[in-house]
Amino acid sequence: MKEQTLIEQVIDAFRCLPGVGPKSAQRMLLHLLERDREGGRHLARILSEAIEKIGHCKSCRNLTEAELCEICSDGNRGSTIMCVVEAPSDVIAIEQSLSYRGQYFVLMGTLSPIDGRGPDEIGIDHLIRRCESGIQEIILAVSSTVEGEATAHYIAEALKPLNITISRLAQGIPLGGELEYVDGGTLSHAFEGRKSI
Amino acid sequence: MKEQTLIEQVIDAFRCLPGVGPKSAQRMLLHLLERDREGGRHLARILSEAIEKIGHCKSCRNLTEAELCEICSDGNRGSTIMCVVEAPSDVIAIEQSLSYRGQYFVLMGTLSPIDGRGPDEIGIDHLIRRCESGIQEIILAVSSTVEGEATAHYIAEALKPLNITISRLAQGIPLGGELEYVDGGTLSHAFEGRKSI
Repeated sequence: MKEQTLIEQVIDAFRCLPGVGPKSAQRMLLHLLERDREGGRHLARILSEAIEKIGHCKSCRNLTEAELCEICSDGNRGSTIMCVVEAPSDVIAIEQSLSYRGQYFVLMGTLSPIDGRGPDEIGIDHLIRRCESGIQEIILAVSSTVEGEATAHYIAEALKPLNITISRLAQGIPLGGELEYVDGGTLSHAFEGRKSI
Repeated sequence: MKEQTLIEQVIDAFRCLPGVGPKSAQRMLLHLLERDREGGRHLARILSEAIEKIGHCKSCRNLTEAELCEICSDGNRGSTIMCVVEAPSDVIAIEQSLSYRGQYFVLMGTLSPIDGRGPDEIGIDHLIRRCESGIQEIILAVSSTVEGEATAHYIAEALKPLNITISRLAQGIPLGGELEYVDGGTLSHAFEGRKSI
């Protein structure tokens, strides 16, 4: 077999990025080589630094380059309420919505025995230990999928002995959603959770 | 102003890639950190190697890590016919179509005085020198845009004294193109260039 040129090797390497196929990978590399070598050099340097330095926060398991993440080390946030999410991207989304100012706990996935992810992988012991230190309310902000529901149920059971208020995010019609295009499952949740005005 | 975390810095750095906005940049970094650190490490290493090592072929100006690119150093290709293209991606597209087995010359852009790209930037002198060494036919495979047409015209004029056959790629209806959706300009080119069967 013919040996790959350096250009072909980099195009292959770009394909580890999500949503990047052979055409976009080629476009990315040629763009960097022809128009933005400085940007590419900076990307390579800081990406390799991030991969070496970024680990998990000791307290909430979110991704961070420090021992404690920015949110856990921020003394101005509510310390008795904790939001349990699946992934770091959920923390970013909730922070951007400015709708919550408490603690977080990042499961880094859902329970999924078929993929070998049990209670240990999503850090249930760690979560229980954190809840024992003054947390009074848990909001389960996990996805509304089968795995998400199972995970929420498991966590609620595991935390029962601690006597903590446990809630889930409201389910219903999204803002701006037209009834015509909302699926049946969402509609029945919206009916169940209706509020008097 | 608050200092950016390392994660925010990498997300910003990913945005130098074409077609990558803040959401995809975040998705790319989180994917690498959560699921494919090895792939990310490899990408960072080989991208930085490529940016340092890849330059232009001495003969055709295409991107390559060697002094002469693979195509110029391949003795089995036609040495009297040369295809003039705008960018390295055009060479890749033509090579993949398997429709041509001669030499190339890569302009690395088109003439565009408003962006400061004149004959020197697209290597006209270099092209003339190459044509003097045994090239008998030139195919101008530049884009069918205003800049492309102007560049083709300029090159044709510059090469006139050398007495070389100069042609342009045929213009007409693309393969699989339905007449209904073909624009007027393409249609009139297709009528002009009609062939008897």
